Amino acid sequence: VIEAGLPGERLLLKTDAVVEGVHFTSEHAPEAVGRKAMNRCLSDIAAMGGTPTHALVTLALPAGFDASMPGELYRGLNGAAARHGVAIVGGETTSNPRGLLISVAMLGRVPSDRCLTRGGGRAEDAVFVTGDLGGSMAGKHMNFEPRLEEARWLGDRFEIHGTIDVSDGVAGDLRHLMAASGCGAELRAESIPISRAARRLARASSQAKPPLMAALTDGEDYELLFAVGKRDAVPLLDAWKTRFPDVRLTCIGRLTDRPGLMLLDREGARMLDVHGYTHFE
Amino acid sequence: VIEAGLPGERLLLKTDAVVEGVHFTSEHAPEAVGRKAMNRCLSDIAAMGGTPTHALVTLALPAGFDASMPGELYRGLNGAAARHGVAIVGGETTSNPRGLLISVAMLGRVPSDRCLTRGGGRAEDAVFVTGDLGGSMAGKHMNFEPRLEEARWLGDRFEIHGTIDVSDGVAGDLRHLMAASGCGAELRAESIPISRAARRLARASSQAKPPLMAALTDGEDYELLFAVGKRDAVPLLDAWKTRFPDVRLTCIGRLTDRPGLMLLDREGARMLDVHGYTHFE
Repeated sequence: VIEAGLPGERLLLKTDAVVEGVHFTSEHAPEAVGRKAMNRCLSDIAAMGGTPTHALVTLALPAGFDASMPGELYRGLNGAAARHGVAIVGGETTSNPRGLLISVAMLGRVPSDRCLTRGGGRAEDAVFVTGDLGGSMAGKHMNFEPRLEEARWLGDRFEIHGTIDVSDGVAGDLRHLMAASGCGAELRAESIPISRAARRLARASSQAKPPLMAALTDGEDYELLFAVGKRDAVPLLDAWKTRFPDVRLTCIGRLTDRPGLMLLDREGARMLDVHGYTHFE
Repeated sequence: VIEAGLPGERLLLKTDAVVEGVHFTSEHAPEAVGRKAMNRCLSDIAAMGGTPTHALVTLALPAGFDASMPGELYRGLNGAAARHGVAIVGGETTSNPRGLLISVAMLGRVPSDRCLTRGGGRAEDAVFVTGDLGGSMAGKHMNFEPRLEEARWLGDRFEIHGTIDVSDGVAGDLRHLMAASGCGAELRAESIPISRAARRLARASSQAKPPLMAALTDGEDYELLFAVGKRDAVPLLDAWKTRFPDVRLTCIGRLTDRPGLMLLDREGARMLDVHGYTHFE
């Protein structure tokens, strides 16, 4: 978040990279890889309540890449950018000898008084999440919708106390919001919106995570997690259903003044000691 | 170059990546790699006459990286950024399974009426270059000075017609300036400032390029190449020597109204058919 001297506005500057073998494989269509690279940055701008404006694209192409690859990558990049009014204004193409890497740098803007951050949550706030959680690796991670419009709508109409995009699992990202807000939290197990993919993966293999754990700890959901004052919770939910009838919004718990993340289920309350996706052990 | 609504100013947005096996090897100290990654972006901001302000750093670390590597990379990144008043305000760390990659995104600003571009050169303009050319691979490519102060000084005091940073060799980059300006050019062979490194490399091996060709076609010089009206040439050179006594500035030729790049030497004039460094064959 950059104060650049624009009256009443701040600039947002963000970079995000996707790497072959980490965020996608050579099995994925280049167009889908390009779309994912752009959408990940858009999702981060969304989590600030911002409007993305310009992007630069760094393509690092593997040795012996197919001549059609750059065009297909750009079809995905351009499609996602155009859908959200973003101009790709530059970048570069270089080599990454043994694998494809795309880094997107994005510029956006946000009214200074509507810039959403992780901090600002308070005890008793209701915690909401958009969409369904878990099992993203079955397909959603390559084809998700950045919640740009939803986040701006929230910031325009409600006093949002803390926001983060769920990229490393609610059990991980909620901790970031808690830490920035100086709060603990309680989640209600029966309220967690478990995706069909997470349930299907659990049925398909006894080695898979139980669906609830998948929903709390799988990465790459690209949903919005946010806190609002408890008085706003019901009006917000009602207004949301009218405005975004196709996007599920769920109150999954509340912030508390006790440290730590608790999970409430039929057996009672227990500390949730799992975390989200860990980038480096 | 982005018109963001700042009165009298434009934003500059730039990304640049360095890749192991392309821009450096595992033999280079991580601190030097970090410095190079930052300085390359700074050199591009310089070529626009701009002032860099903020940077984001994407570190893509190889599998099994040494735990001291991120800190050493950042020592180089921070050192170069601090030297030029740039704040590193974010970025990310991810994996690049088989090699280190660093991408830097940089934000800067430039007064709208002093934004240097490749276009604007005119026939009869004098063509100048800073520093010495060629042989950068012997060491300079890891440790060069972005010409930020010099470029701003030029833009403040003279009507600069076209500017580019020499990263792919004068024979390549001058063609970009020519194309953007709709001009041809003539270079005087005896005026080309050939670096000691280029001469040394030529002496060391009969396989090496002749020094003049190295100076014209080697990559990674990171010097400024620019055109000014011929009446400004002598006053500019005089003022430069006073202001930057330690940085060589050389008039290497002129722009012309005939297409193509000519080289003038004792044997006469001939079309220079060599180009600079080619990124992809």
